[in-house]
Amino acid sequence: MDTTEPVVPPNVYLRGCASRTVLDVIANKWTNLVVCALRDGPMRFGQLRRQLEGITQKMLTQTLRALERDGLVTRTLYPTIPPRVDYELTDLGRDAAGLFDGLIEWAEQHVAEITAARHRYDHRADPEPVAAP
Amino acid sequence: MDTTEPVVPPNVYLRGCASRTVLDVIANKWTNLVVCALRDGPMRFGQLRRQLEGITQKMLTQTLRALERDGLVTRTLYPTIPPRVDYELTDLGRDAAGLFDGLIEWAEQHVAEITAARHRYDHRADPEPVAAP
Repeated sequence: MDTTEPVVPPNVYLRGCASRTVLDVIANKWTNLVVCALRDGPMRFGQLRRQLEGITQKMLTQTLRALERDGLVTRTLYPTIPPRVDYELTDLGRDAAGLFDGLIEWAEQHVAEITAARHRYDHRADPEPVAAP
Repeated sequence: MDTTEPVVPPNVYLRGCASRTVLDVIANKWTNLVVCALRDGPMRFGQLRRQLEGITQKMLTQTLRALERDGLVTRTLYPTIPPRVDYELTDLGRDAAGLFDGLIEWAEQHVAEITAARHRYDHRADPEPVAAP
C-alpha cells in the first residue's frame, strides 16, 4: 500500500484527481454485479458469465481485468488440463462489496417507485416546457 | 407510487428485471456526482457544470434528464427573463445521496491503495500468463 500523504486531499469533483478514476471503476453496474457475485467465494469465468445474465464475454473480461488491476479481485491460474482460472475477492474487494450490496438492494427496493416515476415522466402533458437546459 | 406487488421479487442478476435498469442509472459516476452536489440545496445548470469539473454540457443534460425521469431530481422553471431553471433533489434523491456519499468517500479513501495496485499490475514481470479469460 502506498503510504505517501497526498498534498491536497482527494476530491472526486476535481477533473485531475485520481479518485475520480477510482469512482469510474466502482460506479459501474457490471463492477457492482461481479464483485457481489464473488462474495460467496471464488468463481470461474463461465460461472460468473452464467450468473450475470446478459453480460457479454468481452464486457466480463474487461470488468474482471479492471478489478484485478485495481486490486479488488485476484486471478489464479491452476495448471490443470485444461487450465483452470479462478477469480476471488481481495480484502479490498470484500470491503467494496458491502457498498455495492447497498446499491443493489436500493435498486431492488425502489424499482416499483422508479418505474412509476418513469411512466409519469414519459406520459407528461407538457413534455418539453422550455428548450433551455 | 406503484403499489402492485411483483410476482417474483426484483433481482438485478436477471436480464429482464427492471431493477437492473435502476442499477444502470445509479451505478454511474456522473449520477453519483450530480446527486451529491445537489445535497446542499437547489442548483442551476451552470453552477452544476462548474462544480463537476470536466463534465460536458451534453452529459450533464443527459444525466439530469435521467434523474428527473427516475424521480430523484425535480426541474423547476421560473418565468424570469431570462428564464431560470433550478434542479433539486426529491426525497428519493436525498435517500440515494446517502449511498452515493459512501461510494465517493470510499473512492477518496482508497485512491492511494488503488493507484499503487494499478502501478504493480502495469509493471508485472509476467503480464499475460495465459490467453484464456
